[in-house]
Amino acid sequence: MSAADVTFRIGLLGRGTVGGAFEQLLPKHASRVELLTGLRPSISGVLTRSTGSFDEILARSELIVELIGGIEPAREYVLRAMREGRHVVTANKQLLSQHGEELWDVARAHGVQLRFEGAVAGVVPVIRVLQESLAGARIDRVHGIVNGTTNFILSEMARSGITFDEGLAEAQRLGFAEADPSEDVDGRDAAAKMAILARLAFDTPVRLDQVRYEGIEQIQPDDLEYARELGLGLKLVGTAERVGEGLSVRVHPLFLYPGHPLASVNGPFNAVTVESPAITEITMSGPGAGGPQTATAVLGDVISAMIPPASTPPTTQQLELVHDVVSAFYLHLEVADQPGVLAQVAQALALHHVSVKSVVQKGLGQQARLVMVVHPVLESRFAAAMGDIADLEVLRRPPRAIRVLEEQFG
Amino acid sequence: MSAADVTFRIGLLGRGTVGGAFEQLLPKHASRVELLTGLRPSISGVLTRSTGSFDEILARSELIVELIGGIEPAREYVLRAMREGRHVVTANKQLLSQHGEELWDVARAHGVQLRFEGAVAGVVPVIRVLQESLAGARIDRVHGIVNGTTNFILSEMARSGITFDEGLAEAQRLGFAEADPSEDVDGRDAAAKMAILARLAFDTPVRLDQVRYEGIEQIQPDDLEYARELGLGLKLVGTAERVGEGLSVRVHPLFLYPGHPLASVNGPFNAVTVESPAITEITMSGPGAGGPQTATAVLGDVISAMIPPASTPPTTQQLELVHDVVSAFYLHLEVADQPGVLAQVAQALALHHVSVKSVVQKGLGQQARLVMVVHPVLESRFAAAMGDIADLEVLRRPPRAIRVLEEQFG
Repeated sequence: MSAADVTFRIGLLGRGTVGGAFEQLLPKHASRVELLTGLRPSISGVLTRSTGSFDEILARSELIVELIGGIEPAREYVLRAMREGRHVVTANKQLLSQHGEELWDVARAHGVQLRFEGAVAGVVPVIRVLQESLAGARIDRVHGIVNGTTNFILSEMARSGITFDEGLAEAQRLGFAEADPSEDVDGRDAAAKMAILARLAFDTPVRLDQVRYEGIEQIQPDDLEYARELGLGLKLVGTAERVGEGLSVRVHPLFLYPGHPLASVNGPFNAVTVESPAITEITMSGPGAGGPQTATAVLGDVISAMIPPASTPPTTQQLELVHDVVSAFYLHLEVADQPGVLAQVAQALALHHVSVKSVVQKGLGQQARLVMVVHPVLESRFAAAMGDIADLEVLRRPPRAIRVLEEQFG
Repeated sequence: MSAADVTFRIGLLGRGTVGGAFEQLLPKHASRVELLTGLRPSISGVLTRSTGSFDEILARSELIVELIGGIEPAREYVLRAMREGRHVVTANKQLLSQHGEELWDVARAHGVQLRFEGAVAGVVPVIRVLQESLAGARIDRVHGIVNGTTNFILSEMARSGITFDEGLAEAQRLGFAEADPSEDVDGRDAAAKMAILARLAFDTPVRLDQVRYEGIEQIQPDDLEYARELGLGLKLVGTAERVGEGLSVRVHPLFLYPGHPLASVNGPFNAVTVESPAITEITMSGPGAGGPQTATAVLGDVISAMIPPASTPPTTQQLELVHDVVSAFYLHLEVADQPGVLAQVAQALALHHVSVKSVVQKGLGQQARLVMVVHPVLESRFAAAMGDIADLEVLRRPPRAIRVLEEQFG
């Protein structure tokens, strides 16, 4: 087979944050994609505002990745590509929320795939789940935190008591908000995404101009103070739900009780909860934006378009299975309440290079409870120390140990 | 077209909890599936221990749903079905974790689909996400709460200070544990699921007998007391992670810091977190077991096998878009600190049938802050009340309102 036979040529429209990240990501994964699919993906051309010709790129591509954003010329390019038999992957929420039915009609009519996981909640796989996993379920409600900028600002306001303006400035400083954040903070960006989710979940045409939305500009620090007092979370939430025989799709700030799956989603993350009588609810969360993250969603769509459905390819790796790993441990000992016990235990640990992080000792009459957490250590070393400790005469019961995941989150 | 032309015939192997639920679910969704796919699914035969012939069912089916469980005869049936060109959907974790490579080889060799979303975490779409959405990502770690029985027991132990035995009895009473729960509580069930996830995430063959596992039988109430004191969550966690150039796959109890995406997963729920440098992490959670839930995952796989990939079917519903919905509200008023203010506000609310749930009033020198939460009410009524309140002379600033999601969780 010649090189041309195994090349899968991708035309890239747009080289902004996501387009640039996709252009960098693809070569890094080309070998792995070739192992999975038998085809080696490569970029056949890039169209930017100032360089490239759409016609030339289309002529030499099997698939078009549209990352220009906005309506025109993105709409025209996507329609032309599909009419000429090319699969299209896009992350364009504006286009889909305003012209989705036209695009999906053309995709079906020409037997091509139009994939758009990156358009909503970045790499969080909500599009695929609504279109495929839950294709058979009757959905009652979709709740989503689908704008990372506003979730970051609200999280910062809740955490440090700052104002909206200060939160926005912080988001801009850290790259979580654009120079012109108006569509994020006024709720319109989230509304476009909810229009797409509502279309898929409720099988009803929904356009952006049918979605009612409010933003977070009016939220005051004392609203978040109230939330903190009551343990509530304040989020900008998109809702699409059945109301009687109708459908409501809207975006507005919403107080959530603790325990709600969206209440603990903080920072620039996105999350979507899908409620259905058959399944109770499922929740998906992850980074909702960012060049590399959205580019990963785009790449997942590209690979899906290349790969036969539901194929589990042969394994390409033979990683060795490792059994002795590093863990931190909680250690619970019931010991005689007499002098020198801690020293004996500490000596057994030190002998095997197990280092103690914290100790709690509680008297219980004749015996004491010794609870400690040790720093991460090879499990074989910890097991050897546990063997020595189990042999100590001061021990009243066999020692108990439970691993601790040391990482801090949130 | 004759009826036979549009029928998609499904042979069902097994009529246990999941098989019975699938048999009930399919007819309820047949019309919707026909709208989506152009094909009307129907069950062409059911094989149970005492009734039905596999050969006859195979001969009259396009797709086989295997819900017998265990190794034989499930393995033989799945292999024969695929060798005779039938797609297979299964939820059989034992079979896949012990004979997966053989099955996936045969599926590829015969160009048929072998789908198994229901084998791990029920309707939580972790299989599809690993196989498709993240096909292009380099994964570093997968953490999973993949056994609902043990998560329920640990949640109950944490919540009410009961022992493992009491928690198990409660789980059995509520149907969250089998009569023989040994494979759940000793970690083997979770180990089988982690073998499947590790195979997909790390592209390396992993069999159940290579997964090290521990259960929760040894966990004592005072371990959970310790966790509560420090705000830690104690979960039975499956881990599959890169360790140097190797791979560790294991299941054991693990303390998690608050804020970890798995720390707040309580009750019989499952959740899986996938970490990858390109995407930080994504987390998916939902009901991990139960007949209707797993049957929904099976139905999603069946529809995926019937539908062309990445098709967005035409809409079949025309739900009316509703704009006036029912919401609870938080209401924030800054008012003159004088007698009768609360009465004026309460009257305006009552006039529009808005009912007050709770009130907080705080003095701020010349003015007072009046914060209240009202019971769910049609938004148009609340807006009318807000209009009246805004006109009150005692108001020092425009009133602010934020919606409250009334449901309690967790």
